[in-house]
Amino acid sequence: MTGTLYGIGLGPGDPELLTVKAVKTLQRVPVVSFFAKQGRRGNARQILDGWLHAGQIEVPLYYPVTTEIPVTETAYGDQLREFYAESAATLATHLSAGRDVALVAEGDPLFYGSFMHLYIRLKERFPTQIIPGVTGMSGCWAAAGVPMTWGDDGLSVLAGTLPEADLTEKLRLGDAAVIMKVGRNLPKIRAALTAAGLLARAIYVERGTMPGEKILPLAAKTDDTAPYFSMILVPGEGRRP
Amino acid sequence: MTGTLYGIGLGPGDPELLTVKAVKTLQRVPVVSFFAKQGRRGNARQILDGWLHAGQIEVPLYYPVTTEIPVTETAYGDQLREFYAESAATLATHLSAGRDVALVAEGDPLFYGSFMHLYIRLKERFPTQIIPGVTGMSGCWAAAGVPMTWGDDGLSVLAGTLPEADLTEKLRLGDAAVIMKVGRNLPKIRAALTAAGLLARAIYVERGTMPGEKILPLAAKTDDTAPYFSMILVPGEGRRP
Repeated sequence: MTGTLYGIGLGPGDPELLTVKAVKTLQRVPVVSFFAKQGRRGNARQILDGWLHAGQIEVPLYYPVTTEIPVTETAYGDQLREFYAESAATLATHLSAGRDVALVAEGDPLFYGSFMHLYIRLKERFPTQIIPGVTGMSGCWAAAGVPMTWGDDGLSVLAGTLPEADLTEKLRLGDAAVIMKVGRNLPKIRAALTAAGLLARAIYVERGTMPGEKILPLAAKTDDTAPYFSMILVPGEGRRP
Repeated sequence: MTGTLYGIGLGPGDPELLTVKAVKTLQRVPVVSFFAKQGRRGNARQILDGWLHAGQIEVPLYYPVTTEIPVTETAYGDQLREFYAESAATLATHLSAGRDVALVAEGDPLFYGSFMHLYIRLKERFPTQIIPGVTGMSGCWAAAGVPMTWGDDGLSVLAGTLPEADLTEKLRLGDAAVIMKVGRNLPKIRAALTAAGLLARAIYVERGTMPGEKILPLAAKTDDTAPYFSMILVPGEGRRP
């Protein structure tokens, strides 16, 4: 009898935004695993704080690199590939011994993030179950109190790493938008929003639902300092009876 | 002292996919309100079943129309406008009397849906708090076990009500996609996915996370019968070390 791999969404940051199913599963499984930056406890582990108990085996998975090497370099892919293979082997040891494993993911497990890289390496060998979570973007627009999509509005979720011309075109063609991976891309994103005529509608959200949360109109943000996990929201303006 | 209006996301359908914060708030407030079709108990009320207690005041809000009049007709907007105004007035009576009100929304409260129409009518007069929820689309891709967005993938959430040419263009320009409001639009959506070269990747999900759930490749779905709340997922194929 092998164990089951649970992919558990932790939500946007506030520990009370875990689902009931996530909490029940986390408290029932013998092994809980999470990703963290080398030398840090990590945000995921922090969210878990009040939910785990002393009898559980914790398996931290430390990234060999995060921002030290550009993602476009071969060395980045090579190191991450090896890390994912080793991490999958570690979890497989527990699963093969019949122990259920909860591998957690900030936000939702199948919407960006590292969980999926282990999931595709393990899902043919072991039973799996995904427990969806509240996404970071839902947390941000809830914190901002901004209705995002009305009627037939579309929503475009875009990476701030895209070239400026691509960002502008996609923003022009869409209705509501969320721009993720802001960080050092902020000046480029601001230029794309301006070109698409959307700067006045854009809202900047930093650490949504977490301590240190900051929310302001992007037009009122005068500096270019933004953490990687900040987000920009462009609410839709669709049908409203 | 006026009461607070809580906008509470109920998640995709499974009652255990409510957040801890949603459950705590629902059990604490004296007034719980939900939308339903005239003459029905409604899906939202069904999800609440195990979470409410006998001492709470329930305020059902019954739509005057749902699919009887096309949304493009003036009468549709008129009737809904009156309904939202009356519903807001009903909740305002409780809030003015100092009673906290939880108005629930399937999925996430600020991502489509009726909650927002009352929210914008009440938020300047009363304190409000939004508790985000797991979206219907997260529930669907979790049920399907399909990783949706990798690396710098974008996600386009599109309404199946769009004209075929628009759908095709947006699907071509994007990476991952979710098509909502399927129902009678299914043949048109299938044509757009085919034109965009994405039919083979598309997954059809009906009643995700709920009893009667159906998941199959869209290419294997031979009929054109789909409920309005079914969804089509097109997973992204971005960077995977």
